[in-house]
Amino acid sequence: MAAALLDAEEFRTALRGLEHRYWGSHPFHRRLHDGDLDERELRFWAANRWYYQSMIPQKDAAILSNCPLPGVRRQWLDRIVYHDGRTAGEGGLERWLRLCEAVGLTREEVLDERHLAPGTRFAVDAYVTFARTRPWVEAVASGLTEMFSGHLMKQRVVDMLAAYEWIRAEDLAYFTNRIDAVSGEGQETLELVVEHCVTREQQDAAVAALSFKCDVLWSLLDAIERAAAKQ
Amino acid sequence: MAAALLDAEEFRTALRGLEHRYWGSHPFHRRLHDGDLDERELRFWAANRWYYQSMIPQKDAAILSNCPLPGVRRQWLDRIVYHDGRTAGEGGLERWLRLCEAVGLTREEVLDERHLAPGTRFAVDAYVTFARTRPWVEAVASGLTEMFSGHLMKQRVVDMLAAYEWIRAEDLAYFTNRIDAVSGEGQETLELVVEHCVTREQQDAAVAALSFKCDVLWSLLDAIERAAAKQ
Repeated sequence: MAAALLDAEEFRTALRGLEHRYWGSHPFHRRLHDGDLDERELRFWAANRWYYQSMIPQKDAAILSNCPLPGVRRQWLDRIVYHDGRTAGEGGLERWLRLCEAVGLTREEVLDERHLAPGTRFAVDAYVTFARTRPWVEAVASGLTEMFSGHLMKQRVVDMLAAYEWIRAEDLAYFTNRIDAVSGEGQETLELVVEHCVTREQQDAAVAALSFKCDVLWSLLDAIERAAAKQ
Repeated sequence: MAAALLDAEEFRTALRGLEHRYWGSHPFHRRLHDGDLDERELRFWAANRWYYQSMIPQKDAAILSNCPLPGVRRQWLDRIVYHDGRTAGEGGLERWLRLCEAVGLTREEVLDERHLAPGTRFAVDAYVTFARTRPWVEAVASGLTEMFSGHLMKQRVVDMLAAYEWIRAEDLAYFTNRIDAVSGEGQETLELVVEHCVTREQQDAAVAALSFKCDVLWSLLDAIERAAAKQ
């Protein structure tokens, strides 16, 4: 017998149940928060994660491209604006580049991707390909890791300021700005997924999509950790 | 010997040289302008072209998704906003729906695509697939048909108001609004293509892309003409 449709609360619970797979508990993140990374490791982290940040607008545009609903497109478009900014020198990508500079990288060495670990590229590209090739609501569901990110980012700002004396509060503008953004987006995205997954098959696919995204992020930190260790 | 890179003006001329292939000279458009379409044909035209209009934001989002340059993405994003509107009830898609109503269609019969000719769907889907699968600058070049559209739309407003007495000026807001939009966009897009096609191979691909788009539009009118004739 086919599994029954979950009611909205059961479905939300199934999605939220993946929190233990979120990269907050990855050993490299723990070391970041505990102040155990040296400057080289921090630079490696920032430069590799840049690639993830830089591809988010293209991932979000892929969702737009696959979505036939103008109302959803209008809602989703704001994310691209958030990361790319309305003008040059603004937006989430710019804030990440400033963090890169704060940990001692030049913009040039971030943008030319010289520090990029192959595993970083594979994980991020897999995420973009997922958004390009899967139904839009699955790709939206994959972004629900943002439900888990608010608490982690708040803690990160506190921990990084305490642990790395050369980092100033303004260097962490990516996170402080993002904390506000995800507190609203996470709920909005969750309700979008709940509304548009109307079969059990779609609900299961949404849970699988979020699981996949947890793997993408985890794998990204694996790649960073390994590459930073061997230098 | 490989063909030499065209200088900017030669390249612009090659692109503009495709104007004779633009759908302005298609027999069905000529009949539209001459006031020779009956109400059923006008409805068929509006309902089929709706499918083209409705897919433009998804086509433009595909270009965004393939473009690694934040500056270009910021510029291109405005097109999605133009067609989808900032809020429900605004934008190019909404204006096209109002034209559909003016020629006697209900929104329901437009949105459920009951009047759609298979050839319309094939042509439009081919265009979206092109944008999803080709380099972003080629997909941008394919949109250069807008260079040819300003004059045609101005003439259309005059001709339609003269020929079809039940059509009011406000019903043609899609065109009157679009005339202003393309007068700027056409030039901007042309310069974007000129700037980012830096090899002869890319220049040739851009010309081929614009040729392809002329085929898409022409084929769309073929499909409309045939389907309208056989009923």
